[in-house]
Amino acid sequence: MKELLNIMQKKQKKKPINNNPIGIFDSGFGGLTVMSEICKVLPYENLIYFGDTAHVPYGSKSQNTVIKFSKEIVSFLIKQKVKLIVIACNTATAFALPVLQKKFKIPIVGVIKPGAKISILASKNKKIGIIGTEGTINSKSYPKEINKLAKVKVYQQACPLFVPIVEEGFINCEFTYAIVQKYIQPLLNKKIDTIVLGCTHYPLLKNIIRKHLAGNITLIDSAQAISQEVKNILIEKNLLANNDKPYFKFYVSDNPLKFKKIGYRFFGREITNIKKIDLE
Amino acid sequence: MKELLNIMQKKQKKKPINNNPIGIFDSGFGGLTVMSEICKVLPYENLIYFGDTAHVPYGSKSQNTVIKFSKEIVSFLIKQKVKLIVIACNTATAFALPVLQKKFKIPIVGVIKPGAKISILASKNKKIGIIGTEGTINSKSYPKEINKLAKVKVYQQACPLFVPIVEEGFINCEFTYAIVQKYIQPLLNKKIDTIVLGCTHYPLLKNIIRKHLAGNITLIDSAQAISQEVKNILIEKNLLANNDKPYFKFYVSDNPLKFKKIGYRFFGREITNIKKIDLE
Repeated sequence: MKELLNIMQKKQKKKPINNNPIGIFDSGFGGLTVMSEICKVLPYENLIYFGDTAHVPYGSKSQNTVIKFSKEIVSFLIKQKVKLIVIACNTATAFALPVLQKKFKIPIVGVIKPGAKISILASKNKKIGIIGTEGTINSKSYPKEINKLAKVKVYQQACPLFVPIVEEGFINCEFTYAIVQKYIQPLLNKKIDTIVLGCTHYPLLKNIIRKHLAGNITLIDSAQAISQEVKNILIEKNLLANNDKPYFKFYVSDNPLKFKKIGYRFFGREITNIKKIDLE
Repeated sequence: MKELLNIMQKKQKKKPINNNPIGIFDSGFGGLTVMSEICKVLPYENLIYFGDTAHVPYGSKSQNTVIKFSKEIVSFLIKQKVKLIVIACNTATAFALPVLQKKFKIPIVGVIKPGAKISILASKNKKIGIIGTEGTINSKSYPKEINKLAKVKVYQQACPLFVPIVEEGFINCEFTYAIVQKYIQPLLNKKIDTIVLGCTHYPLLKNIIRKHLAGNITLIDSAQAISQEVKNILIEKNLLANNDKPYFKFYVSDNPLKFKKIGYRFFGREITNIKKIDLE
């Protein structure tokens, strides 16, 4: 028995365990689609989510403002002893990731790069479409990231109505189909064969977008892409956890009740353990 | 000549002039529809507008958060030596007006009461519909205000898609008609004969709402209602100005360029003299 324990301890030394939580943040609910994917890919990790619901949406705000909010959130998550931070918000990634990576020592990953990588692999005709909020699109982060890695044509379309449609639950309404058409048609006219869902709300519109896309367009869900990236980093840095009963904690800057109610649709399961805190 | 001057001075004593500006604030652009009406009703007044574009929209935020933002803005406007403050935002009026009136000595008026008063006068069958953002509707401020003054039935409907539709300029799209129908039909089913546009963005949807309302429904534009109220207060308190060339100043908490571009549609004329300031 003692020998067995010794062998196990030696093995543990080779593969150290880090049960500190992963921190995830977003301007609101959308990042819960990312958290939901991380749960699937990394089922033994403790997760702490911060939804900046007092300042949502980031998509229409300026870079400096989004950087300011993001710094406050990262500082808060570091105080919660997280081992890695996921920016589960395209706008915050577009605007703040390089600044945050420079300022803080902890590994910080954003949603854009993983989605960009996968879109290049998926596109056969090298014409990729990006849909996202105004902030993400204006930042040109996806085209920049994609063109660092490959010479492909990238076409963009901001879709400001998609977030409120998802939050209202109007996913299967006929007018939603018309709005999807209005936003997607200009990309189809460019003969793209791949579309990146560049906003964490958009996975909930996947089916209706797919219904509109008659041809063989590939949809890239950046929530799935980043979850795999997080797993790779944890393996590489020997930071994987082995919690049998991992916890999920949620912090919001405004209205926990609304977060609980609407968040359910994004997270796919009931949300408990929510606290409201004021970072300012 | 001297006698004439004496007579004029005596008259001026009876009707003192106060050329200090009126302060107007909103969470974003919407309040510009109120400012536009105030310009028409009070053409000799200097006006200062504050658009809290770093925190827009207020409609989905909690009462405490909106109170905090509103206090900061009122303090800023008072530093600009305003003589009266107009809360040109239904959510901020619903959540913060009583607190602000208690905390500050300056006259502060909000959009809800004037609209409520006029709707009572307009409704013949004593059934009134209110449309607004989530925050305004959940606060029940219109029903409370209306029922203080008269026994009438009030039915409410939150319309979260209207603000982004107006800001996107999708006013004449066919799907906008379908969305208007989705939101308005439940009110029509209640046989209301009057609808209060309980959000400062909604005057831009007046025509399409009217098109949908087959019967003789009266639309109450709270921007018009509050402008008359402001004039009455200025007369009553001897605070009217007589500027031949009044100035308009604009302050925003984020992105002056976007404010200039989109604000044009709300204000109805070009917006110059915009400064970005950080109140936090």
